[in-house]
Amino acid sequence: MKCLFVMLIVGMFLFPQCQRAPKERKAKYVFYFIGDGMGINQVNGTEMYLAEKEGRVGIRPLNFTQFPVTNFATTYSKYNAVTCSAAAGTALATGVKTKNGTIGMDSLRQSPLYSVAVAAKKAGRKVGITTSVSVDHATPAAFYAHQPNRSMYYEIATDLPRTGFDLYAGAGFLQSKSKNDSTAAFLYDILRDSGYVVLRGAEEFVTRSGECPKVVLIQPEGCATDCLPYAIDRKTGDLSLSQITELAIGFLNRNNEDGFFLMAEGGKIDWSCHNNDAATTFQEIMDLAKAVEKALDFYRQHPDETLIVITADHETGGIGLGTGKYALNLGALQHQQISKEELTARIRELRAEKKNKVSWEDIQILLADQLGFGRSVKLSTKQEQKLKEVYQETFGTGKVKLEKSLYSADEPLAGQAVRILNEIAMVGWTSGSHSAGVVPVFAIGAGSELFQGKLDNVDIPRKIAQAAGY
Amino acid sequence: MKCLFVMLIVGMFLFPQCQRAPKERKAKYVFYFIGDGMGINQVNGTEMYLAEKEGRVGIRPLNFTQFPVTNFATTYSKYNAVTCSAAAGTALATGVKTKNGTIGMDSLRQSPLYSVAVAAKKAGRKVGITTSVSVDHATPAAFYAHQPNRSMYYEIATDLPRTGFDLYAGAGFLQSKSKNDSTAAFLYDILRDSGYVVLRGAEEFVTRSGECPKVVLIQPEGCATDCLPYAIDRKTGDLSLSQITELAIGFLNRNNEDGFFLMAEGGKIDWSCHNNDAATTFQEIMDLAKAVEKALDFYRQHPDETLIVITADHETGGIGLGTGKYALNLGALQHQQISKEELTARIRELRAEKKNKVSWEDIQILLADQLGFGRSVKLSTKQEQKLKEVYQETFGTGKVKLEKSLYSADEPLAGQAVRILNEIAMVGWTSGSHSAGVVPVFAIGAGSELFQGKLDNVDIPRKIAQAAGY
Repeated sequence: MKCLFVMLIVGMFLFPQCQRAPKERKAKYVFYFIGDGMGINQVNGTEMYLAEKEGRVGIRPLNFTQFPVTNFATTYSKYNAVTCSAAAGTALATGVKTKNGTIGMDSLRQSPLYSVAVAAKKAGRKVGITTSVSVDHATPAAFYAHQPNRSMYYEIATDLPRTGFDLYAGAGFLQSKSKNDSTAAFLYDILRDSGYVVLRGAEEFVTRSGECPKVVLIQPEGCATDCLPYAIDRKTGDLSLSQITELAIGFLNRNNEDGFFLMAEGGKIDWSCHNNDAATTFQEIMDLAKAVEKALDFYRQHPDETLIVITADHETGGIGLGTGKYALNLGALQHQQISKEELTARIRELRAEKKNKVSWEDIQILLADQLGFGRSVKLSTKQEQKLKEVYQETFGTGKVKLEKSLYSADEPLAGQAVRILNEIAMVGWTSGSHSAGVVPVFAIGAGSELFQGKLDNVDIPRKIAQAAGY
Repeated sequence: MKCLFVMLIVGMFLFPQCQRAPKERKAKYVFYFIGDGMGINQVNGTEMYLAEKEGRVGIRPLNFTQFPVTNFATTYSKYNAVTCSAAAGTALATGVKTKNGTIGMDSLRQSPLYSVAVAAKKAGRKVGITTSVSVDHATPAAFYAHQPNRSMYYEIATDLPRTGFDLYAGAGFLQSKSKNDSTAAFLYDILRDSGYVVLRGAEEFVTRSGECPKVVLIQPEGCATDCLPYAIDRKTGDLSLSQITELAIGFLNRNNEDGFFLMAEGGKIDWSCHNNDAATTFQEIMDLAKAVEKALDFYRQHPDETLIVITADHETGGIGLGTGKYALNLGALQHQQISKEELTARIRELRAEKKNKVSWEDIQILLADQLGFGRSVKLSTKQEQKLKEVYQETFGTGKVKLEKSLYSADEPLAGQAVRILNEIAMVGWTSGSHSAGVVPVFAIGAGSELFQGKLDNVDIPRKIAQAAGY
């Protein structure tokens, strides 16, 4: 060590031009991916599912789990051991814990808290906030809005032009009119008057975004605007998170020498976990990895100036990879073709089509087609019997008691069928809501080494700001 | 970078004696702690429990979660998505995945696999293998034995002197005589003839180990030899893992300039998780932290030459920290005074004492004393009713169907009472066995930086060997 020091001193006398400190590698480009509800075992489960699909035990690694930094973080909120998405989003956006339900405000719901994205904007970076659910949903909102309650969707959305980032993207908005003030302006008018161009769908974005300084990208006309469909249910025309990510990179990087900050939320991992639907969950996580691949393409071009961080706001569902035996049977999940919600929709279509005279054979065909039941997925007599009972309850009296979770109200037959498939796959769930399970953290690129060692959710945006020099 | 290189070259010409590579920091002293069954959320749960005991939301950090490297690892075995302790122990000991059930042999059960402890011994280090369960149990066995089946306890134990480490410690041995060969020597004779002195209890160890080159430390006469009691049930006289760790450090470091390797297993975290007993589990993890504290005391004296690694062989129970609400109530667990097994024992004592005429009031008093039921822990009418039903089933007909888990067969009343307390604490479980949930990895000291980035269980002993230069 001493020798090295002497050598350096001597060298410095001989080469005085070398005396300046080496330039620190700062993250000019930041990608911040948040898998809503993506606990550490959801990721592990996805990787084991991919291996089992190949007929072997082990893992098929996702791109982001190979990052040089792999870690985990705790997620409790200011007053709750189990956080909601609003408080968790605020922690991940601003580095401050707040009261459950609160968006970008302190725990007294009095003062605004400003996000790392605001710091990025102030530092001259272009900023994009994107999601696979609605633009006013808790996670994206926490980056630009300041409202005491996550359900104040109109108020949240009107904070969007006030904060004034360069790009927002998602399915759409949940409330374009105020619920409390009939004289309040229409959201889309506010956006237009603030200089935002609302572009509907990828095609319109590609054609028109070049001429727009500030844009909001949402679903094309005729597509769902509350959220993008699950990856497992996606149809032509719908946006996807990887498409949004790719378009956002192009937009933020065009004629821009000052770098950018892009947050992208895989918002529906949470929804399928609320629904205890493992197959749909694993597909959503694979879909998040596709979006991350777009960031990785960019990273490979700018490895010294790019930071990619992947994490989650909380765990949802208390997933357990194993229900008693020394085995999993995740491969069975590959036979599920649609989400539980979509299965509900199909059952309703059948009901309408057959004027409620749906036969047990109709249901058997549906479940064979969509979940492989009776074909690739063998049911036990008990499982078959349970399904038939639910069929009789559903189509016998005509009175259907829906199975409600936070984001859906499902046909009991859809619920029972997905429960049986999860049982066959040996996946267990302890909750239909969030848990305090730790979330994974993955980082690559400039400043990624900061994400080593003990992490709580509030540390993550602080470390991003440090890595980026905001 | 280029300048630095030129400066170094010039410096090297001027100071040729500086050309040798700087000495690498090697881990002369290695501590390898394995929490059997300690998934990542068992650790998180313990920290949240400690905070809730203080009447607040958040965490009270354990010593090892503060280590500079925090990470996680996958645990699947050669042919099973969910590993058993034998295959997981072999992976953590030898760096090779094997077939479930196998101890220190390849997956064909033909060739021995040698552990990192054997490499340490060959490299001249003293070696200690210690546990809170029996010395012949899967995890410790994987470090010194080579047997096709983890249940071959006698054969495993006879491998102990063959491998010839300096110190073994634990509760005792499960089989001191061969089951298959009546002419086979008594285990303790083999140990003695191989130069091992068997010392019973801490006191005898302190008095006599100074004169012994090779020792086996087990429980004192009259104490359980299958495992140490749970921390929550510990009585005077019983050994504890922290005591074993402290004694092992003293023994291995005495008159020894060549360093040591010490494996210490917190073996009963797994047992309480098999039993879905959260209070007992969290106490076991706190007890592991006490043992780690002994290693930290040593580390503080030798920070540049010591490596401490904490991990687990697998998750047990599929613990879920949350069962539906945005809350936990882990504080309720502090009212549990004894493990589920010990509660079973108390119910049996009552039964014997009262000649099976145990009244509901007797049970109420027992559950109030041992779990706080009806005092600090309020039960719902439904919970009270459920308990009373189980009481009536248990003491009505006189026929008791025990609740069996891997390591215990409990009174149904004990099972129901602990289930209710877990329900009140909002802790869920998806399994009575192991899961494929990831395990945490923590590291501090020389070479700890090697434990960053994606880890599978087999990577851990390989990195220890690398850090220690075996």
